[in-house]
Amino acid sequence: VSRNKKRIIVIGGNSAGLSAASRAKQLNPSLDVLVIEKTPHVSYASCGIPYMIAGVVKPERMFAFSVKELQTKRGIEVWTNHEAVAIDTVKRTVSVVSNETAREQILAYDKVVLATGAKPVLPNFCVEEATNMFTIRTLVDGLRLHDMIQKQQPQKVIVVGAGALGLEIVEAFRVLGLDVVLIEKSNQVLPDVEPQITAIVEEELSTHNVVSHTNTTVEGVEYDDNRIQRVSLGVGKEPLPCDLVVFCAGIQPNVTLAEESGIAIGGNRAIIVNDQQRTRKLDIYAAGDCTETYHLVTKRSTWMPLAPAALKQGRVAGANAAGGHMRFSGVVGTTMLKVFNQQIAMTGLTIAEIKKANLDAEVVVVTQDSRAKYYPGNQPITAAVLYERNTRRLLGAQMVGMDGVAHRINVFTSALHAELSLQEIRNLDLGYAPPYAPTWDTVLVAGSAALKKAKPRLTN
Amino acid sequence: VSRNKKRIIVIGGNSAGLSAASRAKQLNPSLDVLVIEKTPHVSYASCGIPYMIAGVVKPERMFAFSVKELQTKRGIEVWTNHEAVAIDTVKRTVSVVSNETAREQILAYDKVVLATGAKPVLPNFCVEEATNMFTIRTLVDGLRLHDMIQKQQPQKVIVVGAGALGLEIVEAFRVLGLDVVLIEKSNQVLPDVEPQITAIVEEELSTHNVVSHTNTTVEGVEYDDNRIQRVSLGVGKEPLPCDLVVFCAGIQPNVTLAEESGIAIGGNRAIIVNDQQRTRKLDIYAAGDCTETYHLVTKRSTWMPLAPAALKQGRVAGANAAGGHMRFSGVVGTTMLKVFNQQIAMTGLTIAEIKKANLDAEVVVVTQDSRAKYYPGNQPITAAVLYERNTRRLLGAQMVGMDGVAHRINVFTSALHAELSLQEIRNLDLGYAPPYAPTWDTVLVAGSAALKKAKPRLTN
Repeated sequence: VSRNKKRIIVIGGNSAGLSAASRAKQLNPSLDVLVIEKTPHVSYASCGIPYMIAGVVKPERMFAFSVKELQTKRGIEVWTNHEAVAIDTVKRTVSVVSNETAREQILAYDKVVLATGAKPVLPNFCVEEATNMFTIRTLVDGLRLHDMIQKQQPQKVIVVGAGALGLEIVEAFRVLGLDVVLIEKSNQVLPDVEPQITAIVEEELSTHNVVSHTNTTVEGVEYDDNRIQRVSLGVGKEPLPCDLVVFCAGIQPNVTLAEESGIAIGGNRAIIVNDQQRTRKLDIYAAGDCTETYHLVTKRSTWMPLAPAALKQGRVAGANAAGGHMRFSGVVGTTMLKVFNQQIAMTGLTIAEIKKANLDAEVVVVTQDSRAKYYPGNQPITAAVLYERNTRRLLGAQMVGMDGVAHRINVFTSALHAELSLQEIRNLDLGYAPPYAPTWDTVLVAGSAALKKAKPRLTN
Repeated sequence: VSRNKKRIIVIGGNSAGLSAASRAKQLNPSLDVLVIEKTPHVSYASCGIPYMIAGVVKPERMFAFSVKELQTKRGIEVWTNHEAVAIDTVKRTVSVVSNETAREQILAYDKVVLATGAKPVLPNFCVEEATNMFTIRTLVDGLRLHDMIQKQQPQKVIVVGAGALGLEIVEAFRVLGLDVVLIEKSNQVLPDVEPQITAIVEEELSTHNVVSHTNTTVEGVEYDDNRIQRVSLGVGKEPLPCDLVVFCAGIQPNVTLAEESGIAIGGNRAIIVNDQQRTRKLDIYAAGDCTETYHLVTKRSTWMPLAPAALKQGRVAGANAAGGHMRFSGVVGTTMLKVFNQQIAMTGLTIAEIKKANLDAEVVVVTQDSRAKYYPGNQPITAAVLYERNTRRLLGAQMVGMDGVAHRINVFTSALHAELSLQEIRNLDLGYAPPYAPTWDTVLVAGSAALKKAKPRLTN
């Protein structure tokens, strides 16, 4: 490899990594930009995996760019099936091992961008390899599951964990006609979301013949013939037989390389970065799910592994590594998901996060029409607004409904960014048209209800 | 009428008027609240009229509350078919005439809320009554048109004016299978909207066999047998035969009563009010389409006759008339409309309003996916962002597309309220999920494009 040019080594070839690589090369085409990716795939849509499993999206459509396109169109060198195993911040080198040949190369760098992402958490009792046990994180995971379903035709599926990914994969399995049991250790699906919202999601799951066991913990698995045969749910409960088990029980930042290279890790077990996405080591940047990020509502560091932030952070890291001056302002934590016919969207702090941040909060829940009451397709939207009791500051919002939910949440997202008061939210000049919204939009009704609860009525 | 109680007389029984009456009675149930309404109808959905004409909504579903419900459930007295013909602000009385008996009554008031709305503008040459000529403003208009279509089965329809109402009624007529010619004097439909947006709307009209004549003025009509037989389009153009003509060529504030009662009218020919919806006469409030309002982007008075603002202003007028202390903060001018399969939404200033306000603006237009590129139902969204050249302040935004447009505009609406910079807009933590949005939402892409155009690239 020629060393005439300055070299940026990006470790991790998905959202944050490729966003960094692309931005750096775009800003300074004379740079030598090299992406190191452990798996065979780069630039794919991780969040599309449940839809690939459901057969809604073909595997070949999961890629934004091929390795060849990245090289020829964007001028980015990409090494797939290569793992960065060490960074020497004194000698300024990265050691890279080929997964195919096991050959190690020592590459000099001018800048490094760490984009090592996150990895699934597996229970301790999952000790053996099993051909019917899965997590869903990389495209390798997704393709392996896709292939297993085609070849082994499982019928009884157990999904462990009722977070967003768990619910999306449950829907995918039902689309395929499989029998699905969903197991969640907390007392509701989507733990931490307002119970009046999740009750509607639970009803939707039940309508689509998903068997949900909340307040239930998987305590062990029984292996036989390289397969999990049954899942134990603890004393006094019948073990569940299964053909396929998917663990969606959380993820954690992938920081082994960073930690071993002496790069500072924060209280959230993710890499500490400043608003320029610089780590505490000179010339080492980091972005995406392996990093902490600034939460605009709590005004503290948090760990919030979501794709839009990863892309924005990647862009900032890439720009700064290339000599630019960009800043990432932070997140408010917006999520959307589809569960059968229900749209669920949330932004800001959940009740659990509010407690963790020691804020004194109240919640109001309202139900309002998605369209003019008389217009066909009108559906109820249930919205929860969380606000700080004394200051009446908006802390978060959550919504569910079959129509017009997803993008409505982003009004609250914008309000959180702008620190709008409940009164300002109640006065927003939101658009109205019978096919799309009632004259009093859900957001206004929710803001108004919060304000009424928080304050006497004759004034505002 | 008993005069033991304090009396609020509300003139006008639709959005703003009933919102004021309801709020006043709610805050102070001991008040005597009387609503005077010229037509036979109160509390109906004016904006639903095109959908009633199309047969999508039954006429009886157009009412939010009946007169009886308003009286029994809300304690509001309602006189329909009565017109307020004079206000004596010295004697503190309103003269009310019954449209049925022509009897006049002089009623004492403690407070008045004017909610007289707006009325259609008709060309000067429309001098005779014609059974096939219509404007669409009140439910009386809507029901008369509905009835005429049932009874006379018109086939050739001419709609004059390609604003939002004109386009909605054009769609309604095409749903009924009528032949529609749309005539618009400016060089595009939705005058003042960015031409790259309206080009898509014009294509949609054409796809649905609407014949559009832009740059065309109606110069006269030929009457015969109480009907308009033909519409003249000026020298050298063939007159158009027609069975039905609908004028949607604009509205103006209905301020005759206010003007004759000595209540100050502003430069926009609407009633001047402050942020408490007080007119310049003691104890006379006004709200809705008959009033001026504060524009949060130009920071000047404007006239912006839209239902959500009318309701908010009505609530403020009613609260203050009842002794409360509410303020209306102002509008940014958000509109949504459906034209066949296209959703159109806009907020903030149009190019014409920017010129009028003497602002130096630029526009960028982008096209982005409504969903993840691979997700079924993904459609392009075209978005225009208008910003002030020197300050890079957002001035407005306009969008069109078949999926996910309507509520996306409200992120820009919130941004205008909060005076977010383009940079802040570009960094918004908007939600992402493959069925609803790509990782880089249209709003972010548009904000980013505006920022790139406005500023050099290495920094933000």
